[in-house]
Amino acid sequence: MTREKLIEQIKLKKSFLCVGLDPDVTKIPKHIIEDDEDTIYLFNKLIIDATAPYCVAFKPNTAFYEAYGVSGFESLEKTIKYIKLNYPDHFLIADAKRGDIGNTSTMYAKAFFNRLNADAITIAPYMGKDSVKPFLEFENKWAIVLGLTSNEGASDFQQLIINNKALYLKVIETCANWGNENNMMFVIGATKASMLTEIRQLIPNHFLLVPGVGAQGGSLEEVCKYGLNKDIGLLINLSRNIIYAGNNKNFDELAGIEAKKINDQMKHYFN
Amino acid sequence: MTREKLIEQIKLKKSFLCVGLDPDVTKIPKHIIEDDEDTIYLFNKLIIDATAPYCVAFKPNTAFYEAYGVSGFESLEKTIKYIKLNYPDHFLIADAKRGDIGNTSTMYAKAFFNRLNADAITIAPYMGKDSVKPFLEFENKWAIVLGLTSNEGASDFQQLIINNKALYLKVIETCANWGNENNMMFVIGATKASMLTEIRQLIPNHFLLVPGVGAQGGSLEEVCKYGLNKDIGLLINLSRNIIYAGNNKNFDELAGIEAKKINDQMKHYFN
Repeated sequence: MTREKLIEQIKLKKSFLCVGLDPDVTKIPKHIIEDDEDTIYLFNKLIIDATAPYCVAFKPNTAFYEAYGVSGFESLEKTIKYIKLNYPDHFLIADAKRGDIGNTSTMYAKAFFNRLNADAITIAPYMGKDSVKPFLEFENKWAIVLGLTSNEGASDFQQLIINNKALYLKVIETCANWGNENNMMFVIGATKASMLTEIRQLIPNHFLLVPGVGAQGGSLEEVCKYGLNKDIGLLINLSRNIIYAGNNKNFDELAGIEAKKINDQMKHYFN
Repeated sequence: MTREKLIEQIKLKKSFLCVGLDPDVTKIPKHIIEDDEDTIYLFNKLIIDATAPYCVAFKPNTAFYEAYGVSGFESLEKTIKYIKLNYPDHFLIADAKRGDIGNTSTMYAKAFFNRLNADAITIAPYMGKDSVKPFLEFENKWAIVLGLTSNEGASDFQQLIINNKALYLKVIETCANWGNENNMMFVIGATKASMLTEIRQLIPNHFLLVPGVGAQGGSLEEVCKYGLNKDIGLLINLSRNIIYAGNNKNFDELAGIEAKKINDQMKHYFN
């Protein structure tokens, strides 16, 4: 998907919500587990249908599928196909956090962009340029590089100071030079919203994928205050708060209500 | 697999060779592709049988399987099952370079350790403690953390200087405190063999998984000179040089000859 189309969808829906599809069979409502062979896929379909009107992106985290082996991988493929067929205007992020030497990164890029038809994949930057660049060579596809994550361990390395600058800023600055605002985004955790000021000085125009609002304690208001740009420039991801809003027969309805609630809050940031 | 058992196998075979199983259908001999439905699995089986006498470990790189979607994932599962059934004394590394927030890393750990029954998984450290620790909570399983990689991009971030110390040394020092020499190893690229001196000062006893000998230009002799410890303490990985030693009907025989050649060189380092 092009940047222009993503921005168009955001403005149309007055939403920059991304729904994280992290299906955990220990949390999926019992009646779904009893009803169907492919529990994960059925659960996802219902969540997708209920939340699609209020979000502009979906983000399956591949770990939650790989954990179930071949059948999990099938659920992931079916989920992505379902979204692409029924909601072709939604931006699809494979949250895989990959990154390897050049020829291996190319294999991953082909897997996620060509085979699975994802619009974007999340990338771990530790291995440097040749691990990131292969993901930038596909038309209208995106690499979303981990900048500053929302977890506690983000302080272990990402916030180390190098020549008066935190490593995550160095990572963002360096990676931004390998791509551009049409093929690269950054993951920036919402739990460190005030750090967005410095990030926005480095990359005023890039989109940021922001996890950590809700379950991990981040605030939508804070993120918007420091992170919005002229094109909105944010995709705020919520997973658990939405997909596990309920765990009975009406779980999808409750997920939709939760997504709408966030969408309603987001509408304030549009003229 | 326990550290004791791994060391025992190394001494028994006088080998610390790991064979990387990175099957690329564009490089697999034509007669295999014509012969069988599951090309990758058949190719792997023949490589495994031919090289098993000369190596102590196998390392499938998961990207090369995921690139083929569900069927690739099936090939990976079958390959690992084949190794575990026929060569239970070989150490099995899933080269997946994973790392995510705590609950997601736990999903990956379950996927690779419980479901696939791998002995070890490679881990990207950028997200810090809670992304690494879940992999340390499985008995006789190993996290192999990326320290200093063998690719060109290793200089982009890993070699940045923080308080007079390179980032990769800080990563090794910090991660080593989260685990111990019985559940953690580090990836250290062979192309930077002289840097092993400083690494060995930090972690004299840990095993190091060393890619980059051969195709990427590293030297076995250099790596041994700076990296060996009292228990050998190295797993030297070769992929392309061995598995694509030939591309005709006798490709497996040639792979075996290549593996034996490396094994013969390694024998000099045993008393």
